[in-house]
Amino acid sequence: MKKIVIIGGCAAGPKAAAKSKRLNPDNIIELYTKEDMISYSACGLPYFIGGIVPNINDLSVRTPEQFEKSGISVFLNHTCTKILPDEKKVIFNNEKEVFYDELILCIGSNPIIPDIKNSNLKNVFNLKVIKDGINIKNAAIVSKSVLLIGAGYIAIELMEAFINNNLKIYVVEKHSSIMPFLDSDMSDIVYQNILKKAGDSIEFILNDEVVEFFGEDRFEGAITKNGVRINADFCVIAAGVVPNAAIAKDAGIEIGITGAIKTDNKMRTSVPHIWAAGDCTENIFIPTKQSVYLALGTIANKQARVAAINAADNKELGEIFDGVLGSTVTKFFDFSIAATGLSERKAFELRNYINIEPVSTFVEEYDKAGYMPHIGTLMIKLVADKRTGEILGAQALGTGDTDKRIGIVASALRANLTVNEFLHLDLPYAPPFSSTIDPLLTAAYKLKRIIDL
Amino acid sequence: MKKIVIIGGCAAGPKAAAKSKRLNPDNIIELYTKEDMISYSACGLPYFIGGIVPNINDLSVRTPEQFEKSGISVFLNHTCTKILPDEKKVIFNNEKEVFYDELILCIGSNPIIPDIKNSNLKNVFNLKVIKDGINIKNAAIVSKSVLLIGAGYIAIELMEAFINNNLKIYVVEKHSSIMPFLDSDMSDIVYQNILKKAGDSIEFILNDEVVEFFGEDRFEGAITKNGVRINADFCVIAAGVVPNAAIAKDAGIEIGITGAIKTDNKMRTSVPHIWAAGDCTENIFIPTKQSVYLALGTIANKQARVAAINAADNKELGEIFDGVLGSTVTKFFDFSIAATGLSERKAFELRNYINIEPVSTFVEEYDKAGYMPHIGTLMIKLVADKRTGEILGAQALGTGDTDKRIGIVASALRANLTVNEFLHLDLPYAPPFSSTIDPLLTAAYKLKRIIDL
Repeated sequence: MKKIVIIGGCAAGPKAAAKSKRLNPDNIIELYTKEDMISYSACGLPYFIGGIVPNINDLSVRTPEQFEKSGISVFLNHTCTKILPDEKKVIFNNEKEVFYDELILCIGSNPIIPDIKNSNLKNVFNLKVIKDGINIKNAAIVSKSVLLIGAGYIAIELMEAFINNNLKIYVVEKHSSIMPFLDSDMSDIVYQNILKKAGDSIEFILNDEVVEFFGEDRFEGAITKNGVRINADFCVIAAGVVPNAAIAKDAGIEIGITGAIKTDNKMRTSVPHIWAAGDCTENIFIPTKQSVYLALGTIANKQARVAAINAADNKELGEIFDGVLGSTVTKFFDFSIAATGLSERKAFELRNYINIEPVSTFVEEYDKAGYMPHIGTLMIKLVADKRTGEILGAQALGTGDTDKRIGIVASALRANLTVNEFLHLDLPYAPPFSSTIDPLLTAAYKLKRIIDL
Repeated sequence: MKKIVIIGGCAAGPKAAAKSKRLNPDNIIELYTKEDMISYSACGLPYFIGGIVPNINDLSVRTPEQFEKSGISVFLNHTCTKILPDEKKVIFNNEKEVFYDELILCIGSNPIIPDIKNSNLKNVFNLKVIKDGINIKNAAIVSKSVLLIGAGYIAIELMEAFINNNLKIYVVEKHSSIMPFLDSDMSDIVYQNILKKAGDSIEFILNDEVVEFFGEDRFEGAITKNGVRINADFCVIAAGVVPNAAIAKDAGIEIGITGAIKTDNKMRTSVPHIWAAGDCTENIFIPTKQSVYLALGTIANKQARVAAINAADNKELGEIFDGVLGSTVTKFFDFSIAATGLSERKAFELRNYINIEPVSTFVEEYDKAGYMPHIGTLMIKLVADKRTGEILGAQALGTGDTDKRIGIVASALRANLTVNEFLHLDLPYAPPFSSTIDPLLTAAYKLKRIIDL
C-alpha cells in the first residue's frame, strides 16, 4: 500500500490516478489540480467554440464524483507552491502540506505570451483550459472580428471555429509560412487551400509580429512590427506552449535542454520517488534520438500510464515509454493535415548530426478508385535517408484520409522500415477505400527511384 | 531490345506491359487478351451493378488505343491455347504463332462453379469480366429477386448492389457463417449488422448448398441439399475463384500446392524466360511462410511490376516480391470489414506447424472522440503469439475507419513488431480523427495483459 500524490487535472493526471488505483485498489491516490474541473479534453475546445460540440460538459471525460466513487480523492483549486523531496512533502496554496510515497507531476504547460505592449487588456485570450474555451466562445458570439496570433495546429482549428461564428479573422504569424513545422512546399498548399475555402473571411499577415495592443481597458486592435494596424473585437494568442517546470526546477529536479522536466524511459525524474508525465516533460524523438518538447494529448496519456505503473510498483519498473515520432493531425473543414517523423527541412538541418542524406518525393493522387463518387485528394511527401533507404518522415494533406495513412508511416518508422520494404506493404484495397496501389506506395515507388540513382 | 509477350488483359497484364515499355522504350511489347477489352477495374463491377458507378466505361483504366499510342501492341480476342517453351513460342486461338524473348503470364483465375444440376440454365452468372457485370446489371434491372451463392467479399458487395436495385436477395453459403475467413465471433457481428440494415431484403441460408437449379431454359430457382426451395429471377455464383493454370501446367511450368503457378520472389516460373503475375500465381504468406492462393488486385499490380522489371532486364533481377499478408477490405453500405494476417482460428490450426501460442483480444470503441458528431464504431480483434509477443493478425469491423487501421497493423506485421512495441505507436490524434488512445492501441494494451499473464 502506497500513497501516490498526483498533481495535474487535465489529461495525464487523471489517467495516472485511474491507472495507479486500478493496479492496486489498496493504494491511496490523491489527485490535485489548480483548476475547478478535472479530466477533460482540451483538444475538443476548438470544436466547442465552433459549435460542433454544443455543450462544454460534453468535453468532460470523468467528473470529480466519478473519481471519488472509484476511491480516488480529488482536490480542486489546489495550486502546488512547493515540492520538498527530502521530506517527501508537497505544499499547496502556500499552506497545505501533503505527504507522499510517490509523487507524479503532470503539471502541464503554459501558453507562450509574446512580448506585446498592453498585453493585459481585456478580451485577450489564450486557449488552454475549459474557462478559456468558454471565454473565447462568449467573445466570438458577440463579435464581428478576431485577431489570431499564431498559425499552428490549434490556430488552424480556431480558424474553422471562428468561420463557423461568422467572424472576420486576422492571422499574424511570425514565420514566413503557416504551420511552420511542415516543409514550406507543403504549408504553401495548406495556405492556398485555406485561402480558397475561407475567401474574404481570413486575412493573413505573415513574416510579421504583433508588438502592441491598443484599446482602453478592452482590446480594440493591434499594431505589428511592420506597422500594420489591425482592428478587431478580441484576440486569441495561439503561439504555442512552454513546459510548466519552474516548481520542479525549484525542487532540484533536473530540467532538460528543452526546458521541460527530464525523465528516463520509466518516467522517473532525477529525484527519487518523483515521476512526471504529459506536457511538463521532454521526450526522445525516435528518428534522431534527440530531446524534443512536444505537448500532445496522446503522448501525455501514454506517459501517464507508464508513470502510474512504475510509481505504483517501482520494484519491477517493467513499463517503458521509449520516445515519440511527433505524429500530428489537424483539419480545416474537410482539408486535413497530418505528419510524422522528420520534415525534409529538419532532416537537412540534422544531416551531419545524425549522418543522413535526406531525399524526398511528392505525389498528388486520388484517395480512392478514380471512378468512385466523393473522391478526395491526397498530397503526400515522403522523406528518407538515401544512404540506408530508411524512411525518416511523411507529411500528408488533402480531403482524403491523411491521418491513418500517416499512422501507417508511423508504424513503419517505429520499425525502421526502408522505402524498399515499405513499398511492399500489403495494404487492404477496395474501390471505396483506396486506389489499387495506395498513394503512400506510389510515393514509396517514386522515392525508391531517387534512392537507387 | 527484347520482345516481351504478355498474356492477360485485366490488371497484371496491362501493368506489366506499361512497366516493361517504360523501362526500355526499345522493347517490343505485345499484350494479348481473350477478352474484347483490356485494363479495367474488375473490383469496380459491384459498384457499377449497384449504380454507384453510372457508366461501365468509367471502369476502364486505359483503352487499347492508349496502349498502342505508347507503343504497346494490343491483341484482343486472343485465347492462348498452347505455350511451347523450347521454341519460345505461344499459340493463340489454336492457329496464330507468336515468338517471345520473355513471356509474362497474367492469365488470371476462373470462378469456382459448384457441382449443381442444370447449371447451364440462362440467367446464371459469375462476376469476373466486364461482360458479366453488364449482364448482371441488366438482369437486376428487370428482376425482383436474386439467388446469390457464396457470402465472401464479392458477395457482400453484391448484396449492397442488389439492395440498391430493390431486389429480394437469397444467399446460400455452405459454411455455417458468412465471410468464413474471419473468425466466427467477428463474422457473427457482420451477419447481425447486415440483417439489421437489410431487414427483409436478405434471407440467408447458411450451412447448406445449392444442388439443383430449376427452370425451363431460364433459371427460375434452386433446391438446396437440405431441401430448401428458393424461387428467384436470376442467380449469381460468387463462390470464389481458382487459378487459371492449366495452360501453364501443360507447358511443363511448375504448379504449386495451391494449384496456382509457382514463382520465385522475382516472379520467375520454373521455366526459363517465362514469368507470371496476378491471380494465376501463388504467394508466400509472410506470417507463416506457407504458400497461399489469394486473388487480389493489389497483389496482382505489385507482382506485375516486379515481373516486368525483371523480365525487361533479367540480368540484374533486382526487384523482389516477398510475400503477402492477405490484407483485405470490403463494405456493406457504411459498415466496413477489414483484415490482415492470421485469424485466431487459422493461427490455432497452424500453432504446431509454426510453433506459436495464439492469444487474442477484442475491443469495441468509438472511432473518434466521444463528444464529436458522426461518431462511428470500431470492433477490433488483435491476434498475437503469446511466446514471442509478435502480432499475427487483426480484423476490424464497424462504421469507423477500419481499412487504414488494418493498414497500420499490416505495417507492423511486415516489421514483426511485438504487441509491446505496437502499443507505443505514436499515431496522429485530433478529436475528429480518433480517440486520444486509438482503439488499435487499446486492443494492444488489453492483449499485452493477456500475454504478460
